[in-house]
Amino acid sequence: MRQEVIYYGGDYNPEQWDRQTIIEDMHLMKQAGVTYVSVNIFGWKNIQPAAGVYDFTELDWLLDLLHENDIAIDLANGTASPPAWLVKQSPEVLPIDSFGRRLVHGSRQHYCPTSPIYRQAIQELTENVAQRYGSHPGVVMWHINNEYTCHVHQCFCDQCRQGFQAWLEEKYHQIDQLNQAWATTFWSQAYNDWQEIFLPEAMPTFKNPCQELDYKRFVSDMNLELFQIEKKAVLRHSQGIPIMTNLMGLHEHVDGFKWAQEMDVVSWNTYPNPRETLPYAQFLASDLTRSLKKQPFLIMEQATSAVNWRKINKRKVPGQMRLWSYESIAHGADGLMFFQWRQSQGGAEKFHSAMVTHSGKTDTRIYQEVAQLGNELAQLSELVGTDFVANVAIVFDWENWWALELDAKPSAEVRYIRQMMSIYQALREAHISVDFVHPTEDLSAYRLVIVQNLYLVSLENSQKLAQYVEAGGTLLVNFFSGIVNENDSVYLGGYPGAFKELLGIEVEEFSPLYPTETGRISYGGKQYPTMIWEEVVHLRGATALAKYESTDLVGMPAITCNKYGQGQAYYLSTQLDSSGYREVISQLLAEMAYEPIYDFLQTEDPAVSITYRESATAIYGFVLNYSQDKIEIQLKEEALDLLSAEVRSSTVEINASDLAILKFNK
Amino acid sequence: MRQEVIYYGGDYNPEQWDRQTIIEDMHLMKQAGVTYVSVNIFGWKNIQPAAGVYDFTELDWLLDLLHENDIAIDLANGTASPPAWLVKQSPEVLPIDSFGRRLVHGSRQHYCPTSPIYRQAIQELTENVAQRYGSHPGVVMWHINNEYTCHVHQCFCDQCRQGFQAWLEEKYHQIDQLNQAWATTFWSQAYNDWQEIFLPEAMPTFKNPCQELDYKRFVSDMNLELFQIEKKAVLRHSQGIPIMTNLMGLHEHVDGFKWAQEMDVVSWNTYPNPRETLPYAQFLASDLTRSLKKQPFLIMEQATSAVNWRKINKRKVPGQMRLWSYESIAHGADGLMFFQWRQSQGGAEKFHSAMVTHSGKTDTRIYQEVAQLGNELAQLSELVGTDFVANVAIVFDWENWWALELDAKPSAEVRYIRQMMSIYQALREAHISVDFVHPTEDLSAYRLVIVQNLYLVSLENSQKLAQYVEAGGTLLVNFFSGIVNENDSVYLGGYPGAFKELLGIEVEEFSPLYPTETGRISYGGKQYPTMIWEEVVHLRGATALAKYESTDLVGMPAITCNKYGQGQAYYLSTQLDSSGYREVISQLLAEMAYEPIYDFLQTEDPAVSITYRESATAIYGFVLNYSQDKIEIQLKEEALDLLSAEVRSSTVEINASDLAILKFNK
Amino acid sequence: MRQEVIYYGGDYNPEQWDRQTIIEDMHLMKQAGVTYVSVNIFGWKNIQPAAGVYDFTELDWLLDLLHENDIAIDLANGTASPPAWLVKQSPEVLPIDSFGRRLVHGSRQHYCPTSPIYRQAIQELTENVAQRYGSHPGVVMWHINNEYTCHVHQCFCDQCRQGFQAWLEEKYHQIDQLNQAWATTFWSQAYNDWQEIFLPEAMPTFKNPCQELDYKRFVSDMNLELFQIEKKAVLRHSQGIPIMTNLMGLHEHVDGFKWAQEMDVVSWNTYPNPRETLPYAQFLASDLTRSLKKQPFLIMEQATSAVNWRKINKRKVPGQMRLWSYESIAHGADGLMFFQWRQSQGGAEKFHSAMVTHSGKTDTRIYQEVAQLGNELAQLSELVGTDFVANVAIVFDWENWWALELDAKPSAEVRYIRQMMSIYQALREAHISVDFVHPTEDLSAYRLVIVQNLYLVSLENSQKLAQYVEAGGTLLVNFFSGIVNENDSVYLGGYPGAFKELLGIEVEEFSPLYPTETGRISYGGKQYPTMIWEEVVHLRGATALAKYESTDLVGMPAITCNKYGQGQAYYLSTQLDSSGYREVISQLLAEMAYEPIYDFLQTEDPAVSITYRESATAIYGFVLNYSQDKIEIQLKEEALDLLSAEVRSSTVEINASDLAILKFNK
Repeated sequence: MRQEVIYYGGDYNPEQWDRQTIIEDMHLMKQAGVTYVSVNIFGWKNIQPAAGVYDFTELDWLLDLLHENDIAIDLANGTASPPAWLVKQSPEVLPIDSFGRRLVHGSRQHYCPTSPIYRQAIQELTENVAQRYGSHPGVVMWHINNEYTCHVHQCFCDQCRQGFQAWLEEKYHQIDQLNQAWATTFWSQAYNDWQEIFLPEAMPTFKNPCQELDYKRFVSDMNLELFQIEKKAVLRHSQGIPIMTNLMGLHEHVDGFKWAQEMDVVSWNTYPNPRETLPYAQFLASDLTRSLKKQPFLIMEQATSAVNWRKINKRKVPGQMRLWSYESIAHGADGLMFFQWRQSQGGAEKFHSAMVTHSGKTDTRIYQEVAQLGNELAQLSELVGTDFVANVAIVFDWENWWALELDAKPSAEVRYIRQMMSIYQALREAHISVDFVHPTEDLSAYRLVIVQNLYLVSLENSQKLAQYVEAGGTLLVNFFSGIVNENDSVYLGGYPGAFKELLGIEVEEFSPLYPTETGRISYGGKQYPTMIWEEVVHLRGATALAKYESTDLVGMPAITCNKYGQGQAYYLSTQLDSSGYREVISQLLAEMAYEPIYDFLQTEDPAVSITYRESATAIYGFVLNYSQDKIEIQLKEEALDLLSAEVRSSTVEINASDLAILKFNK
Repeated sequence: MRQEVIYYGGDYNPEQWDRQTIIEDMHLMKQAGVTYVSVNIFGWKNIQPAAGVYDFTELDWLLDLLHENDIAIDLANGTASPPAWLVKQSPEVLPIDSFGRRLVHGSRQHYCPTSPIYRQAIQELTENVAQRYGSHPGVVMWHINNEYTCHVHQCFCDQCRQGFQAWLEEKYHQIDQLNQAWATTFWSQAYNDWQEIFLPEAMPTFKNPCQELDYKRFVSDMNLELFQIEKKAVLRHSQGIPIMTNLMGLHEHVDGFKWAQEMDVVSWNTYPNPRETLPYAQFLASDLTRSLKKQPFLIMEQATSAVNWRKINKRKVPGQMRLWSYESIAHGADGLMFFQWRQSQGGAEKFHSAMVTHSGKTDTRIYQEVAQLGNELAQLSELVGTDFVANVAIVFDWENWWALELDAKPSAEVRYIRQMMSIYQALREAHISVDFVHPTEDLSAYRLVIVQNLYLVSLENSQKLAQYVEAGGTLLVNFFSGIVNENDSVYLGGYPGAFKELLGIEVEEFSPLYPTETGRISYGGKQYPTMIWEEVVHLRGATALAKYESTDLVGMPAITCNKYGQGQAYYLSTQLDSSGYREVISQLLAEMAYEPIYDFLQTEDPAVSITYRESATAIYGFVLNYSQDKIEIQLKEEALDLLSAEVRSSTVEINASDLAILKFNK
Repeated sequence: MRQEVIYYGGDYNPEQWDRQTIIEDMHLMKQAGVTYVSVNIFGWKNIQPAAGVYDFTELDWLLDLLHENDIAIDLANGTASPPAWLVKQSPEVLPIDSFGRRLVHGSRQHYCPTSPIYRQAIQELTENVAQRYGSHPGVVMWHINNEYTCHVHQCFCDQCRQGFQAWLEEKYHQIDQLNQAWATTFWSQAYNDWQEIFLPEAMPTFKNPCQELDYKRFVSDMNLELFQIEKKAVLRHSQGIPIMTNLMGLHEHVDGFKWAQEMDVVSWNTYPNPRETLPYAQFLASDLTRSLKKQPFLIMEQATSAVNWRKINKRKVPGQMRLWSYESIAHGADGLMFFQWRQSQGGAEKFHSAMVTHSGKTDTRIYQEVAQLGNELAQLSELVGTDFVANVAIVFDWENWWALELDAKPSAEVRYIRQMMSIYQALREAHISVDFVHPTEDLSAYRLVIVQNLYLVSLENSQKLAQYVEAGGTLLVNFFSGIVNENDSVYLGGYPGAFKELLGIEVEEFSPLYPTETGRISYGGKQYPTMIWEEVVHLRGATALAKYESTDLVGMPAITCNKYGQGQAYYLSTQLDSSGYREVISQLLAEMAYEPIYDFLQTEDPAVSITYRESATAIYGFVLNYSQDKIEIQLKEEALDLLSAEVRSSTVEINASDLAILKFNK
């Protein structure tokens, strides 16, 4: 089953409306260019009103109606929220929070991921749904469950405790293997048998960090088991239709790389704050999600305007939704969906914007912008399946995220995503596109690989990075990387144990800064303020490119470069503010003689976003103007402006909050 | 039983003292002008020392002593705090908090409002107290329980869960009625039977809003049932004595209008922070409490100086207690009581000020001010029973308060009381007195009715408001009013659904502002900064009085006026800062050609408070000077200055922190 | 057993390392001047791997190895952290927190202090350890348990509830004695029997303050019972070796004075933030800990550089560790130990600095500084056992700390330690040394006694203070002292009831200030800003030295002096900022004609710390330079500079962050 058009539409929850409204929806959808809707995500109670009782009347009618109207169906198995009858019958499906409270029915997604009864119930439900609709001609995608771990990050029930003990036994086999990995000789923590182990629930003080880390792995794995149970149930009755669940971008609790292996398509739900002009976190998350499978992805949810769950929910101003939507396409999206089609009249999300507002009218600004975008996308089908173009990769690892942000570190200010953002934004402002890579991936295709606060890294993975450099690669490592192995156990003998040789340095001491403190480094004749972190670095083969200029670190190396095999490894031992970071990265890129793959589009303006996608025959340059003024972009070659259908030779003008998609022939 | 004098006195807890001190108290009370004391509020353990055992020795002696000394008795039934023996015998009387903890004996008011055992125990106790003292000649008031829901806003015990299920069944009759009201098709929440329903306790994410709203109604009702049980027990043994409980002014958890119907007299406990100069929240709460029955009320508790429960407890400076006391009289109080007569030596409230301080002396500033006020009030008996004068009404509805402040709204910055305060202060600074009205009340007597953030309004109540305007009334509605019905279900078809026709507008989008953001409107040739909220407003018959001057809203209507029947309906779509609000309200009042009932007293100074009370034959003008300087007020007619007993012809001078009560003949 | 050298070393947890590393440690320790290590603190699981099973193989080997290497052993009984097998077997050893959660195995010190099973287990373990090593020639100290109440400040289990009831019965004998002490007639709280009493767990509002106070006494006592059980078990098998546990300085939950009576030596663990230049809280805590027994103490733990448990853990810069270490010696320490010898590879404290870093190398700055200090201390053995010199005492009382910081006070800004710090710093900046005294101690040796916010004081103890003044002593009392007795019951008749006569004043009202507010007083022709607290003070025999200059207090007494018997009692009714406090204290000291015991060392610089220790034949002056510049100190007599071994006649120069120890002959 091949995707022919850019998917466009949204979550559709017609359980809330009468049939007349639904029939009117078909008309409005077509008018708005809708090609794809997600249904039945929260449909459990509707299709299984009681234990053992199924009623598909409404869903049958709906799927046929959608198909008749040529709207492709993303069909959910409907397992996201257990119905009240199940909870009453088996309260043990409810999760327990860190205060020991069971989280009850009345909102959504109130299940324990290890609950045998929940697992059995979703398997049964999924089999029934897949059996009925597994060959429905309108169904183009299976949507499994919804936003796993969105609300329940951890459960502390007895089922989870037993599950964790079993998971640990399967991982470590011998209890003394666990004792060693967890360093339990410290604080008299050692275990004689698996049943002695608790979940990392309330304790008098700092918890065993490796216990916490394993619990995070366990939570991700248990939820992945849910996905696998559901997927298997689908496959028993339905072949050839891609299967996925909607991820959440920069969401901590599921290991995206591990999950992506189980999915046919990756997608994510994006909700940047409309307060922002350039939501780099959204751009980063799109790049990350695309990178999970290195193939186009879907925006499975976004808002037409305001959401309802912030304290203050700003609306998107005219043009903002369109511009951000195209930024997703530019980063590799082959579909753009909204939550939701028609704004709810009641319930907890009634003030979340939708494609059709509470007014039900089509003359609203929101519906008009939705329809404009839908009709534009219909003209851009050639983009479907094209590849994103990048020759820089940033290493990303959920396990490192978990380990880095456990407590009792030198500084709680070193937050993984914030650090990722700082390098990502500096690169984007220099119009450099990036992929994200898991530490186990082959890196040979990349011109530059960046290791950002990779505190935890296995010896095996650090060796892969060394081999990449040895073979001629360029690596940029920043501070507090390569400190511990997969068990959160320090590499002894001098920091950063895993990268010391590769970097040709030794770090003797960490020197974190308070948020109110700054230091200074000098680089290329200019001084830059530092923040968050400094270090005592000794050269062990590397050369110093920049030096500290304050405190007792004066004159010590701050940025270093080490030749290693055919390549070179750079080290940045401190954090800079965003303008300093941009300048220093630019200098480092020049130092590395970095060159992009394509440079058809020329501008120095950091408020302009430039990316490329490519097919076998063409290169598509995306230029989005986030500045307040009209801009003029220089073209190196003649191109076709896809939105205006005009040919541009040397320059293209783009209004504020507008964009151009420029097609260059290969 | 008719009240002859302004009640003056306080809570009296002589259980803490020996008989000699109590006898000395009688002397001190009379010296201080005390005419009324509240006794036995926390007397349960004293009069019922164990199950089935009663001992009235001390209370008999005390009531006789008070009566002999001509001090009227406000007799509590003593049910506020269950004794330890009851808790030990029946721990299920204890409430459960949102963390699942039972709240134990050791402070006060530790009961679950639905507990059958607590209900039975307070009925038995009340019957015993009422039987013994129901005809005591000194008793002029029954004081039921104390500050219901002051500390325990919600209980999450199984008794409450069952009670809630029963309450819902009585309200909705059919489970599908509840499913529809609660919009349970969303998020697969629908119920098959009442026993599936939980209290709105801990859940993974946003709770069903109508479930939360119904639970708030339930809590208010369950506590009102307590009051009714106790009142009924009193009436079985005591007739002709008014029955009340002490309310708490701007307290969220009991529906004052509903409760007031069950009470003979309304009263409240007022504790503004002495840091404030003009405690508008106290003035507002007095107006609101008086409005619950539209009759004079009592200040049942206030502090002579500092309280003990803030982080920092400032004392009242010389004159402050007297001035604020008279402000209560000016707003319709017929009594002023303090917590408490004699400052406690031990326990949790020992640093709460009292009429007699820890020193036990009469030469203290506090006792001297108490005695001065008591002796002044003795000369003002003609005020008892006089009516408060107002021709402006503000709609107030506890159910709207609850609904408006549930989460998942466009902005959490729209807080009901803060919004009430902004209009109330603007009116008070213009020397305009207000009543508060419940949406179901007859409004025909009012010259102007204000609808402030009435997010939730039933269709029936919105029609009452339309009829008021149609018949010639003037209405001022502000933003985010008329959005949902009594089930928190949005009126579809365009905002504000309940008031769209009446106002002649349609709101397309809400545009909340961050606290750090401001916008601008222009009105009458002047610009004003906006905050918190703006909107996209379209005229549908109304005319624009003011326009937006910033962002993409430039030129759109900000304040509108619509002729409707014989009257007119104004709409204010944004929030102004306090000085802007004062000016805009003044302009709008001029636009409406608003005129007060009386204008005997003339001043432009917003730091001067002016109100009127009236009897059949006289009008009493109250002028309180909150400025730092002596002021001069112009009189339109000759008047008698009650406190000085002098006649004033054209002007009256009032010192800083002083006041005049000016009697004009009708 | 007499201590011959300054103890120097650290916690040693070799369970984490192999034998080869341990043998290498012996070499490194000797090189670093280590003379003393603490072992087996968290050794329970190692020596008792299962119920009834003991294995001393490794500990035998280790103690012999240490002894062979002349390293004295501080041997812990190892009871600090119950092993997992005990928790599994008897989960009731786990404490319950204020949310009702049991705190589980996985961090450390997870025991309920009243648990009979824990008590029996630690007795058995201690007997086994003491039997085996009670006569080991290397053992010079018994280290009982570890940092009692460090993490578990309170436990709310049923065992504790029953224990509390029993403790109360033993204290009060008759329930009505308790009712009177707790003032339970207020709020109907009175008890008929002990079993009705709860722990001060979650309640609807403010808890009975005397119940809270007694619970704090109970918690300190229950933990002290643990110490006594363990100590008794040691003494059954080991005589003549001092027994102690490590205290925590300014730690609220154990009553240091009461505990010190049970210990042979006092010690504490000090972890000031390296951000600070002059960590007065450390200096104060050293003075307090020394004062518990009025004899030299040990620093049982400090960090060589960063800790790991703050949000941001700064390193100690070069010289900082040495300077702060000598400050401890200067205040009476006879030993300096670090946590820990070798930095952990895994577990929760792996980023806590150590004497040997993760690098394992000796060329690190940290190891070099450690070794320098160790080798210097080896030359200073004559200081061991010398007395600290002070003639000023500040009254310190844990029970007052507990009572003062309960809620429902006039101001939550009056915090005991912060207030202590303000007077302490003012005295230290004037180079005045202080002892701390318990209110029951003999004060006759002191030239000046200071009573700082002694809110709670028994009548007996207040009379002791009066007798001290009567006999010629000088007393300085500050505000909110002498207010309640040992039951938190107010002394009636005028504040401060316990000191009114002695001070010759009466306080009519408290007037707390908000943090943003200041007042003013005038003293000696100069004005000073006030903060936190003011009062309405009346003279009743005293004379006013300073007056208020703001608000309605203008002209009222602010600082007073009263002649009482042969002495004089000063009263300071407000709080000053730190520079004002320094000046006012200096003026008051001049007013009192205060003179120090020794004044060999002359400087006005508040950034220089000066203290004295003395033996029978010599006086040792310590001068530590915390300023950024070299200083010059005037000597009144010739002295030997111990660190340089040079004789100084009239002046001594000291570099920034350096010190001199000057020996004057008697």
